[in-house]
Amino acid sequence: MSKDKAPRRPRAETPKGFRDYFGAEVTERKAMLDTIAEVYHRYGFDPLETSAVETVEALGKFLPDVDRPNEGVFAWQDEDEDWLALRYDLTAPLARVAAQFRNDLPSPYRRYAMGPVWRNEKPGPGRFRQFYQCDADTVGTGSVAADAEICAMLSDALEATGIPRGDYVVKVNNRKVLNGVMEVAGVLDPSDPEKFAHERGIVLRAIDKIDRLGSEGVRALLGEGRKDESGDFTKGAGLSPEQADVVMGFVNAPRYIDERLIDIEAAHPNQPISVIGHIRQIRDAGDDYASRRLTLPVRAYESRNRVTLSYLGDLVNASVIGSEGVEELSQISDLLAIQGYLADRIRVDPGVVRGLGYYTGPVFEAELTFEILDEKGRKRQFGSVAGGGRYDDLVKRFTGQSVPATGVSIGVDRLLAALRAKGRGQVDTRGPVVVTVMDRDRMADYQAMAGELRRAGIRAEVYLGNPKNFGNQLKYADKRQSPVAVIQGTDEAARGVVQLKDLALGAKIAAEASVEEWKSQPAQSEVARTDLVAAVKRLLGQG
Amino acid sequence: MSKDKAPRRPRAETPKGFRDYFGAEVTERKAMLDTIAEVYHRYGFDPLETSAVETVEALGKFLPDVDRPNEGVFAWQDEDEDWLALRYDLTAPLARVAAQFRNDLPSPYRRYAMGPVWRNEKPGPGRFRQFYQCDADTVGTGSVAADAEICAMLSDALEATGIPRGDYVVKVNNRKVLNGVMEVAGVLDPSDPEKFAHERGIVLRAIDKIDRLGSEGVRALLGEGRKDESGDFTKGAGLSPEQADVVMGFVNAPRYIDERLIDIEAAHPNQPISVIGHIRQIRDAGDDYASRRLTLPVRAYESRNRVTLSYLGDLVNASVIGSEGVEELSQISDLLAIQGYLADRIRVDPGVVRGLGYYTGPVFEAELTFEILDEKGRKRQFGSVAGGGRYDDLVKRFTGQSVPATGVSIGVDRLLAALRAKGRGQVDTRGPVVVTVMDRDRMADYQAMAGELRRAGIRAEVYLGNPKNFGNQLKYADKRQSPVAVIQGTDEAARGVVQLKDLALGAKIAAEASVEEWKSQPAQSEVARTDLVAAVKRLLGQG
Repeated sequence: MSKDKAPRRPRAETPKGFRDYFGAEVTERKAMLDTIAEVYHRYGFDPLETSAVETVEALGKFLPDVDRPNEGVFAWQDEDEDWLALRYDLTAPLARVAAQFRNDLPSPYRRYAMGPVWRNEKPGPGRFRQFYQCDADTVGTGSVAADAEICAMLSDALEATGIPRGDYVVKVNNRKVLNGVMEVAGVLDPSDPEKFAHERGIVLRAIDKIDRLGSEGVRALLGEGRKDESGDFTKGAGLSPEQADVVMGFVNAPRYIDERLIDIEAAHPNQPISVIGHIRQIRDAGDDYASRRLTLPVRAYESRNRVTLSYLGDLVNASVIGSEGVEELSQISDLLAIQGYLADRIRVDPGVVRGLGYYTGPVFEAELTFEILDEKGRKRQFGSVAGGGRYDDLVKRFTGQSVPATGVSIGVDRLLAALRAKGRGQVDTRGPVVVTVMDRDRMADYQAMAGELRRAGIRAEVYLGNPKNFGNQLKYADKRQSPVAVIQGTDEAARGVVQLKDLALGAKIAAEASVEEWKSQPAQSEVARTDLVAAVKRLLGQG
Repeated sequence: MSKDKAPRRPRAETPKGFRDYFGAEVTERKAMLDTIAEVYHRYGFDPLETSAVETVEALGKFLPDVDRPNEGVFAWQDEDEDWLALRYDLTAPLARVAAQFRNDLPSPYRRYAMGPVWRNEKPGPGRFRQFYQCDADTVGTGSVAADAEICAMLSDALEATGIPRGDYVVKVNNRKVLNGVMEVAGVLDPSDPEKFAHERGIVLRAIDKIDRLGSEGVRALLGEGRKDESGDFTKGAGLSPEQADVVMGFVNAPRYIDERLIDIEAAHPNQPISVIGHIRQIRDAGDDYASRRLTLPVRAYESRNRVTLSYLGDLVNASVIGSEGVEELSQISDLLAIQGYLADRIRVDPGVVRGLGYYTGPVFEAELTFEILDEKGRKRQFGSVAGGGRYDDLVKRFTGQSVPATGVSIGVDRLLAALRAKGRGQVDTRGPVVVTVMDRDRMADYQAMAGELRRAGIRAEVYLGNPKNFGNQLKYADKRQSPVAVIQGTDEAARGVVQLKDLALGAKIAAEASVEEWKSQPAQSEVARTDLVAAVKRLLGQG
């Protein structure tokens, strides 16, 4: 027997780390993105659709290397020897566009972009090498009004998709405040920005670990170092206790802010800062950070951002850059407050540290505050679904000119998962009404029925497989998640009627009903052929 | 001076053959695709979104070659040495999906897909290496009802996007009819399909040239051969005059069909086949093929498809496969007629030969019949915007099992161009209302105005560039194609009013008005601050 006889068949598989999206997976995501786009559009943002392919040179960050494909991106060499690559985010193409069309684009340029990006990374569970991003950015203005606008727009977008007010919070912090803290703590010298870079790196990483290590752990990392449970020692930043106090004052700011709100209440017992009771309760329970997650009475939010800003102002009072950061946050907070966005929706929160190494000014993070069950069945907050901030020097690589920009990126898959968890998918995911084929020669009649239903706005189709086995037709309708099957045999046709099978009700009965109920066939009814559309509408709840 | 001092800046350019889409370009295409998707969805088709990246093995057609990148596709080698590539159409991924998920998908499986595809080809004017496709296919049924459904759906989709009935026609032909013609003409032997393959190739290419060469030229190519104007000789298929007559009977079918309609009128003078006058006129003008393009009175279409089928039936009567093809077209025509799709919308037309080499049964082509001016200012028909047909063996490569399928692909850019040519873009492409900034300290007030407008559903934004030069703000509003600018200085704020500048009217006046009209400033009006929303609505024509 020769091995060569049958040519090997290709494998029908996606490449590793890629996947397909079917039916409702596509329409639900599309409905969500359409809703977000509508909000962005109303704010004056224009859509931009760049190509998936960019030159590696324009993408930056990744360098062509003939021996080893470009780390992190999918790249290949053009016939002109140029390296091309699939975009790994939507910001790098925006930078290229802002530089390429700088003489034609309005300035400031507000744009949104939605589409897939590609990462040449090891795939894992729920981690794909192609996924959607959804970005909005304002390029060409340093005004904090642009930052405030992004926050308000993000808040509106989340509510428009179906996240109720109170179930999310947009948190705002500022990289400059952290720089101020570093300066006051003695690990940043404004006249020599490179100095203490090593120590600042350790401090930043320590701050980022507050949720995992707690105050004690972070303080150890700020000082000499920390031995973990396995006995491994991590060297610390070597700060003195006084220096560490400053950093801890920042790290524990949310708790201190809560304390101050309590003090204010004590001093003004008649003021309705009704939040305090809640906070006290949480604090007494010994959980420092749970207060961040509180759903507070709206009235309290007028005070909250002011208290936070006053606390931060005191903390970085001795630093010019720090005070500038607090002033920017204060302006953002005021601009938002006057439009009605109080701390129940958009909150100044020094606890936001993610991405602070990347951004240059205000940073934003949208968190969903409702609880879900994790893989192990434990309750936890849903967490972050969007993040962004101000990043200057967007197009400097190309033109040499500094161009300030600010923007936000929504985690498309995360927000979609949240909407599903809340049962807020906005899409009717039912399949079409299926017109079955009892009599192959009367196909035109069945087509006419489907046509009538469609003209009435009802999703409908005729079964087009082999009609011989009627059971297969009903199995097909089940697989299609069809709500209603239409049946008309020779007898029904002669009598001018059709049978309607309520498949949703049928499935319920099959699961629950007794034999008697089953026999009475409440899920099947006969209606006049002329009443087809009206009767189907009733079954679909559109009557 | 060292050359190395300043690092070379990257070029801000898309790769050759790629482009960006801005604002209305994105929204117009999206609106069109959304409209089409809605029609497809109502017909029971499910969306499918496959990843952009496939294994070269699954894509097929292109073979990996280490020395030379895969011809026609963008391909690269994975770290596992597997070749990956960007999809070059939406059919190859459908074949892979139909094979990979054959046990899970409903059968028949109706799916639509819309998205970019990539071709590694030489770019040219208007010819890009990334472009959109929009496909709908039914996999897993050989029933001609599926073909009829595709035609009806295509007709509905074109009308839904804004192509009026009468401005398009969906033409249907059948590969089997052509095979029948080949058999009758003696260049196809059903018992030995490979025989005469060379001759058939020449015949097919000759048929395809009818529009360019006319009857004489095609007949020459069917026989000994043809010398063109430059003196070059193309060898013919070597058919005898009798054999060539059969092929010419197919090529000239549209004219013969018109003649037969005239004969029918002569025999039944009282029958209202009102088309005949038109046809006679066209024929007398000496233009054989213009009759295809006629916009005919609807009443005539009931006859037209029947006459065509009868003519074709006579032509291929001696061929089993040819008669089968005519019978299929007849069934399609009947299924459509009973649903009201007559020859004014969907027409049996043996003139459709494009793609006949690829498809295995019915073929479809949608043509727009209205005239536009070409690059040289000459009137011509807009032409084809969609094509498709039945192709069996879709998944056979993967599974060894034959799976019949039929489908259609709309040329997204062509249809979009047609809608623009007809002024049928369904999208409001105006820019946002721009709230200007007269007083930097009152940014919050301006933001509040924009917020109010947005809450009333009006697209609005605050100018966020440097507000110092007011002229720049109005230039910005112009660049944004803003319909209205809102202006409020300290004086207006004190008086509780705003100025509204009608920028659309302003542009008109600037182009047309006399100095007196200009001075009277009809494009600028003062309204109470509290009337802002209502007044802007009036200016936008939403009052």
